[in-house]
Amino acid sequence: MFDVIAFDADDTLWHNEILYTRAQARFKGLLLAYLPGAGPHAAGWIEQTLYQTESRNLHQYGYGIKGFALSMIETAIELTEGRITGQDIQRIIDIAKDMLNADVELLEEVRPTLAKLSESHALMLITKGDLLDQKRKLAQSGIASYFRYTEIVSDKTHETYQAIWNKYQIAPARFLMVGNSLKSDVLPVVTLGGQAVYIPYHTTWAHEATADTESAQPGYYQLEHLGLLPALVEQISPRDTDEHE
Amino acid sequence: MFDVIAFDADDTLWHNEILYTRAQARFKGLLLAYLPGAGPHAAGWIEQTLYQTESRNLHQYGYGIKGFALSMIETAIELTEGRITGQDIQRIIDIAKDMLNADVELLEEVRPTLAKLSESHALMLITKGDLLDQKRKLAQSGIASYFRYTEIVSDKTHETYQAIWNKYQIAPARFLMVGNSLKSDVLPVVTLGGQAVYIPYHTTWAHEATADTESAQPGYYQLEHLGLLPALVEQISPRDTDEHE
Repeated sequence: MFDVIAFDADDTLWHNEILYTRAQARFKGLLLAYLPGAGPHAAGWIEQTLYQTESRNLHQYGYGIKGFALSMIETAIELTEGRITGQDIQRIIDIAKDMLNADVELLEEVRPTLAKLSESHALMLITKGDLLDQKRKLAQSGIASYFRYTEIVSDKTHETYQAIWNKYQIAPARFLMVGNSLKSDVLPVVTLGGQAVYIPYHTTWAHEATADTESAQPGYYQLEHLGLLPALVEQISPRDTDEHE
Repeated sequence: MFDVIAFDADDTLWHNEILYTRAQARFKGLLLAYLPGAGPHAAGWIEQTLYQTESRNLHQYGYGIKGFALSMIETAIELTEGRITGQDIQRIIDIAKDMLNADVELLEEVRPTLAKLSESHALMLITKGDLLDQKRKLAQSGIASYFRYTEIVSDKTHETYQAIWNKYQIAPARFLMVGNSLKSDVLPVVTLGGQAVYIPYHTTWAHEATADTESAQPGYYQLEHLGLLPALVEQISPRDTDEHE
């Protein structure tokens, strides 16, 4: 038995990336009108510049829609060399507001899986992003009551997990993390002696993700979808701490 | 003895409002160039419109600099009827980035007060705003080590305090909150059976704030500055829970 089973939220329990994809499509459509001579690669160029702007601003803005909005505006000014109109900047803000208003759509199998696991285990939500937006999504999701603990964090590093374990007095070996990001949900937990279940958001990503080195890591599992989690939890047990030495 | 003494951060431990005041002054200077015929009340009109925009967006953006930046941009577009240039929008973003980069300046008496109280009590920080920005400020402040617990919240309502007390198993009667906001730091705590110390940010606000009804509330204290807190803590004790019936 694990003391705590923790879940990532964005693209593990509810759809999130799709909101960014749709927003970027609207953003590109808006900017292309300013770049008539830019040729067939203009859309890719916009996308790449936006990504660079986001990466450059990440240490100041952190994750979430508000920082994404500010980076879209900055990118628009840069790519149009300041020619973008006030009205179109307002349209970019409205794209971000639509994201903040978007309905929460759960992935398949989320509700029955949480219902089942919460009968036997303490469940925790660990999600990063804007505090208010994540709280809104959790409230709207209808699944908040399955979680005994909720942690909204600015990043998911080794220090983040260590701090959570200290706070709740959880032994890493008795902690299982479930999420769609190898970087945020799996690697820090596994390298610190916990266990993690990787559930890629798109099944097409599955094969890429199971590089040999990763699947050979003790305490690491991969599933096709969340509905398979209760059966896995029955098979595995907390890590023998000796194995981690 | 209290189980926990909790502190607000912005304008209780470090200066914050001054950053917004300076940013608004730059913002007004920038917009006034677009409004040459607006007369002597133009600055007040800009301020009022910004405040309205912020209030309207608060339920989506929450507290913090990123939402403030987006509201400044929206206000600029509205007041210039879309005439604001891309370069000036970028200047507004740069104002916000300067806020995010600003050095943390502690109020007077903060460090010795926390050093003294942390010898005898568990201290907690409860602050609202952008997650990453508040974490950065705490890290840069040099006072993080005095706090056993840190809570960054999206708002400070009755529910917020209740949730924190539940999480750490704190009895409200044994909890003391210290802050500069009657609305966020004092009233919710006192009405739920805790105690609170109100320390107005500007001493000139002090007299306004001590309305009779408030100072008559059991469990409510007011101090001129944080340096007076250790002496107060020695005089008062956790509330008799009967008194709260």
